[in-house]
Amino acid sequence: MHSVRAATPADIPLILDLIRALATYEREPDAVKATAADLLRDGFGDHPCFECLIAESLSPEVQPEPAGFALFFYNYSTWRGRQGIHLEDLFVLPRFRGQGIGKALLAKVAARAAEQGCVRLQWDVLDWNQTAIDFYQSLGAQFLTEWRIMRVNDQGIHALANLASVSEAAR
Amino acid sequence: MHSVRAATPADIPLILDLIRALATYEREPDAVKATAADLLRDGFGDHPCFECLIAESLSPEVQPEPAGFALFFYNYSTWRGRQGIHLEDLFVLPRFRGQGIGKALLAKVAARAAEQGCVRLQWDVLDWNQTAIDFYQSLGAQFLTEWRIMRVNDQGIHALANLASVSEAAR
Repeated sequence: MHSVRAATPADIPLILDLIRALATYEREPDAVKATAADLLRDGFGDHPCFECLIAESLSPEVQPEPAGFALFFYNYSTWRGRQGIHLEDLFVLPRFRGQGIGKALLAKVAARAAEQGCVRLQWDVLDWNQTAIDFYQSLGAQFLTEWRIMRVNDQGIHALANLASVSEAAR
Repeated sequence: MHSVRAATPADIPLILDLIRALATYEREPDAVKATAADLLRDGFGDHPCFECLIAESLSPEVQPEPAGFALFFYNYSTWRGRQGIHLEDLFVLPRFRGQGIGKALLAKVAARAAEQGCVRLQWDVLDWNQTAIDFYQSLGAQFLTEWRIMRVNDQGIHALANLASVSEAAR
């Protein structure tokens, strides 16, 4: 048995643990620089940058045990003129797998999307993570085969931003 | 000569024209269902879902002419504990290409990212659009080669959301 509920500020240490566990699973154990203060500011203020769900495993006469999480935010479709949801993180701790907890988390994210009138629910998957790909496809998700993701990181952002000020100074 | 400025509600008909022109370029001419009311509600209220920049071509003694646009919103990095920018649309009308207008738009988006302390600027590119890929790479963007995009559309969202209510009813 399990249940899924909205995260509260009291869950922040747990959320950070789960983010780190997911990063380790994604072979980037040292990538997590986020702090509790970051998550409090960005997730639980007046205009949160993300929403988070916590899955708990339930057994009779035992405290609920954290089993996984889903963290998401909203994107926008200019074709549809509607918001969508981008699922950033979905993770179930290894010892709780195979019990439908990942599906329950994803279903709850979809329910949130439906409630908000969102026209898309999407996420990125690692191309070597066949277990995840099979799981998502079994739930009706499809690859956007034509599209590839490009990124500019911190330094690149500043280099590009400088082009804007140079071009303004020249006018 | 050209300049880039923030869009206002008066630009909505222009933004819709540019969204349609981009959809046509992307070989999906009939995909745009968004209306002026959608863009007004979602882009220009108290908590906008997106921001939009307009590029204008400037010539002496002529009114500024719309040449292109960039439309973006914010995402979130759980590894960094910071927002990033997702660039949804970047488009320059064909007759204004080759003048640095795309670069000026992208630079201005990067400047906005820098101003907001964003750690990432990213977007999706069509894998057959080599002109765009070359352009982005010349400005320092890199492919996220390991990641692929998955999506559930409207119907899929409702089917998945139903799993959540079934699972709740069963508890």
